[in-house]
Amino acid sequence: MTFRPILAACALSIGLTLPAIADDDPAIAARQGQFKLLALNFGVMGGMAQGRMEYDAEAAQTAADNLYHLTRVDQMVLWPEGTDSDSVDGTRANISIWEDLDDFVEKFGALQMAAESLQDVAGDGLDEMRAGVGALGQTCQACHEAHRDEAS
Amino acid sequence: MTFRPILAACALSIGLTLPAIADDDPAIAARQGQFKLLALNFGVMGGMAQGRMEYDAEAAQTAADNLYHLTRVDQMVLWPEGTDSDSVDGTRANISIWEDLDDFVEKFGALQMAAESLQDVAGDGLDEMRAGVGALGQTCQACHEAHRDEAS
Repeated sequence: MTFRPILAACALSIGLTLPAIADDDPAIAARQGQFKLLALNFGVMGGMAQGRMEYDAEAAQTAADNLYHLTRVDQMVLWPEGTDSDSVDGTRANISIWEDLDDFVEKFGALQMAAESLQDVAGDGLDEMRAGVGALGQTCQACHEAHRDEAS
Repeated sequence: MTFRPILAACALSIGLTLPAIADDDPAIAARQGQFKLLALNFGVMGGMAQGRMEYDAEAAQTAADNLYHLTRVDQMVLWPEGTDSDSVDGTRANISIWEDLDDFVEKFGALQMAAESLQDVAGDGLDEMRAGVGALGQTCQACHEAHRDEAS
């Protein structure tokens, strides 16, 4: 966003307003951070599940514990109305999240349950962990397909 | 980071290497996300503590619960060696974190304990919450003063 102040000054000088930008919104920045934390910890187990890293029961359990705690974070303050991709540049959060909030909440609930299940088995062996990782990954995918814009 | 590919191409063409950039590193991006999540939830209670928002026991308790869960996330994968501000542009993580890791771990432990204490009282009334918020804020400050670079 290096050039945003310059753009803003130019826009101001000719009487335009710029669309909001995601980095300026603490809720959007925080929820994007949340997904980076989820992805990093999911990636530890994903790497083991796909054979790119050797299975390590302790590291897998730690990552699964992290996913458990991260998915306990209440989402209310992270998704204020008006932070959809129609309204703000730099977010892929489709307006469908707010138009069909029940579905979004249900899909987040599925992620929470999958994280609990994965936490129960992540340290028990590669096959057990792999099954839990697959199930959790499906909850990610279901929500992304329904409510996340394609990468531009 | 819009212009990084162009910069990289230029540097390559004249035989230079660029320093790593924080956005390119998933661990740095994830830990910066973590602090945004912490700040957003801390800010809910900070706003109430400072009288900018009316005290709301339920919202305060939710924010404190969130801080509890966020501070349970194991930090191991978030702070790999070589992700200090001497090595990477775009992070304020001082090399002292790795040079005096025991101190960093101790200070993170103090944050965890303060988050537990705050969780116990956040919904009990404004004064109780305010005391807990103040104590937690001091643990943030202690670590920032020791291990975070000044904003540039």
